[in-house]
Amino acid sequence: MVKDERGVTAQSADFSAWYNELVVKAALVDRGPAKGTMIIRPYGYRLWELIQSDLDRRIKETGHENAYFPLLIPESYLSREAEHVEGFSPELAVVTHAGGKDLEERLVVRPTSETIIGEMMAKWIGSHRDLPLLLNQWANVVRWELRPRLFLRSTEFLWQEAHTAHIDEADARRETMLGLDIYERVAREVAAMPVVAGEKTPGERFAGAVATFTVEAMMRDGRALQSGTSHYLGTNFARAFDIRYTGDSGREELCHTTSWGMSTRMVGGIVMTHGDDKGLVLPPKVAPHQVVIVPITRGTDTGVVAAADELAGRLRAAGVRVHVDAREQLTPGFKYNEWEMRGVPIRLELGPRDLAAGTAVMVKRLGDEGKQPVPLDTLPEAMPGILDEFQQFLLDRATEFRDAHTVSVDNWTEFTDAVSTGWALALHCGAPACEDDIKAVTAATPRCIPLDGAAEQGNCVRCDAPSAYGKRVIFSRAY
Amino acid sequence: MVKDERGVTAQSADFSAWYNELVVKAALVDRGPAKGTMIIRPYGYRLWELIQSDLDRRIKETGHENAYFPLLIPESYLSREAEHVEGFSPELAVVTHAGGKDLEERLVVRPTSETIIGEMMAKWIGSHRDLPLLLNQWANVVRWELRPRLFLRSTEFLWQEAHTAHIDEADARRETMLGLDIYERVAREVAAMPVVAGEKTPGERFAGAVATFTVEAMMRDGRALQSGTSHYLGTNFARAFDIRYTGDSGREELCHTTSWGMSTRMVGGIVMTHGDDKGLVLPPKVAPHQVVIVPITRGTDTGVVAAADELAGRLRAAGVRVHVDAREQLTPGFKYNEWEMRGVPIRLELGPRDLAAGTAVMVKRLGDEGKQPVPLDTLPEAMPGILDEFQQFLLDRATEFRDAHTVSVDNWTEFTDAVSTGWALALHCGAPACEDDIKAVTAATPRCIPLDGAAEQGNCVRCDAPSAYGKRVIFSRAY
Repeated sequence: MVKDERGVTAQSADFSAWYNELVVKAALVDRGPAKGTMIIRPYGYRLWELIQSDLDRRIKETGHENAYFPLLIPESYLSREAEHVEGFSPELAVVTHAGGKDLEERLVVRPTSETIIGEMMAKWIGSHRDLPLLLNQWANVVRWELRPRLFLRSTEFLWQEAHTAHIDEADARRETMLGLDIYERVAREVAAMPVVAGEKTPGERFAGAVATFTVEAMMRDGRALQSGTSHYLGTNFARAFDIRYTGDSGREELCHTTSWGMSTRMVGGIVMTHGDDKGLVLPPKVAPHQVVIVPITRGTDTGVVAAADELAGRLRAAGVRVHVDAREQLTPGFKYNEWEMRGVPIRLELGPRDLAAGTAVMVKRLGDEGKQPVPLDTLPEAMPGILDEFQQFLLDRATEFRDAHTVSVDNWTEFTDAVSTGWALALHCGAPACEDDIKAVTAATPRCIPLDGAAEQGNCVRCDAPSAYGKRVIFSRAY
Repeated sequence: MVKDERGVTAQSADFSAWYNELVVKAALVDRGPAKGTMIIRPYGYRLWELIQSDLDRRIKETGHENAYFPLLIPESYLSREAEHVEGFSPELAVVTHAGGKDLEERLVVRPTSETIIGEMMAKWIGSHRDLPLLLNQWANVVRWELRPRLFLRSTEFLWQEAHTAHIDEADARRETMLGLDIYERVAREVAAMPVVAGEKTPGERFAGAVATFTVEAMMRDGRALQSGTSHYLGTNFARAFDIRYTGDSGREELCHTTSWGMSTRMVGGIVMTHGDDKGLVLPPKVAPHQVVIVPITRGTDTGVVAAADELAGRLRAAGVRVHVDAREQLTPGFKYNEWEMRGVPIRLELGPRDLAAGTAVMVKRLGDEGKQPVPLDTLPEAMPGILDEFQQFLLDRATEFRDAHTVSVDNWTEFTDAVSTGWALALHCGAPACEDDIKAVTAATPRCIPLDGAAEQGNCVRCDAPSAYGKRVIFSRAY
């Protein structure tokens, strides 16, 4: 394994090792004692908070209200929806003992909250005037994963889960697409991840859903990351939990419900969408520090640190998140490497000579423009634009990468080639057995049927049966 | 039980029934299926978010960083600190089964996070340069309560828990008082709760602490509510989890740690500090709706609703949280009662005649000033001041109530009188057996030794032995 001086395997040498080492080394996360659990360290948590505050604002602006439901759910609740319990049973953590006694009914630690929220919706909804009921919850959930990975598939993770009830299918489907649209925007506009929005094939649906929609992102190893999902649940949960309303005519009707969630998995997605051999590359909108100033002090000269603090104050006043790295025991070179590895978008080096010239040296994280002198007096004014440009550059680069690694394929050889480095756009018969066969041979699964795909008919890329869905499907290996 | 048309027992008739009914009726909260769990409904959650955002800002401004630690903690961790495990064992919920198998080591659902955070601090702290380590976590915790009460003592609750590590006792004690000071300010400035800051007697300390400090609030039935606590943990957890740093001299030293927490219990505190026979009275700073506008429409006249929306828009632009109650099927009178019961500080009634006169009718929640006509054009400008005044009025009223129900007592008769309606300030011997005796006879416990109490010596109000602590202690029945 090739590790550089930072002690992290190069991305180009071993993507998986690079990821596992980097997220820990960059102090985003650490491993917890119980299997698959993680500690989100301040640098990673701040990143999550920045995603969260943006997402929370969009959820509120579209009329949803936050609430909080219990962590512990009676085991019998899950059994009420047959597909739901089948899907989640293998992953449950169960409390059997509490307050010094064995419990009469076992409690599951929520893996998701459709059941308990369904139970309460049934209680709260009376007439059609109570609809739509638009709830959202920020919470931790626990799913016992066989092969846990930090952020991507952790035993416990943080997320928001919206749960809504509607008068009919049309309104519920409108809501499902609204949730998906919010995810598409947050991914693109905040995380600089050019996700593709689409519908899941039946085999990849959420347990208990009538239809599942997803935004899929491409990681720099060509694999897909499901980055947010939105489910139209039909009347499945309404029937199981008796979520009914009295219509204008006085008749009782079942509600149509939806749920949609986005999680701390996004942090892993950002790492794998933008990172490189040198470490993280953080989009400015989610970077805990958008700018780090490294004062270059010689001997006992303290004027430089004071000037760095003064510059930081002016940058902060301009709305920039800035950090001055004034640690005395470390060399500037060490700091440059560390902040590069931790993905800070802009580094400013400030030494006595720069100060005398009224400039700082600016280095962008990708380093492609080298070291540029920039005037200190106008820097706070210029910085928001510089950061926006960097954000846009990352989105453009990721979009180009995704497009360059997405191939429309018409035969099996092209298919296997495409999924070895990225995504294949292929016609598929829709048969579960054929999906399984493709997965067994190539490890690729259907990620989604893109919403904006062009209408097309033909034969299945694998089995030659007539294609389903009326358009091409994205197949890829996935996280 | 005397219930009025709102279906809530009057506070003056039965305080406990009033509380239990009101928090549900006002849609702050509902009961969850598992024993003692609660659902925090949007109205209650928004109130919590308003406390939370203020508290989070203060925590960040004082240099603390948010992080997130696992919910599930190996049971053995708790045993490492003897007093800690003894204190929390009876309240633990335990996961024994996960992923379809019995676990090799049982996992407790965190009742608090000193142990798991201690384990990670030991890993992260190397030298004195890593100190102080100032962490905070927003999380849910579970404590199996024998006698659960909504918000006050729920099986699961939400809180922040700060956990910090320091170079020596002086720095850790400074931090302990900083946490307490933040709580005192949030309670007073946001919740309008005039809390008393003090130290707990040894018998009331947090399990594993060297010293516990608290802010205690007085509810309108005279009982005390512990509203936030801050603990100096000495080197107890540092020793148990091996949290050490290398000092300048190269020698390894134990860290001194602290922890401090404030929870959703505050929502219950606000209800019981300000509420009255008619229902909730919410301080404007935590009110989800600071102003509710009730349009009074006659027949098909829709101009009034449009005018209400327009006014709401201008109030919003002035930074006011405002809600227009345009529900068609309900009478104005019903709405007045409902928003009174739900504690909205300011109600504006807007009818065609008001509109013609360019005014609205303003009614403050306490109703003591009657109905006042107010000019529509200057209302947005005036409203922030009106809300500030209402906030200050509630704080003053609560302070007067507290002072009127706090009695400095010098004999046992005075003591029992005082704790039947409020707080007794008494000298006490400090003996645990004497504390137990007082509790058995009066149900009162020592709430705290106020920090600002005057120095005083004398004999114990109960047993006549020489007093401890050098000042008077607050005794009260408590939640």
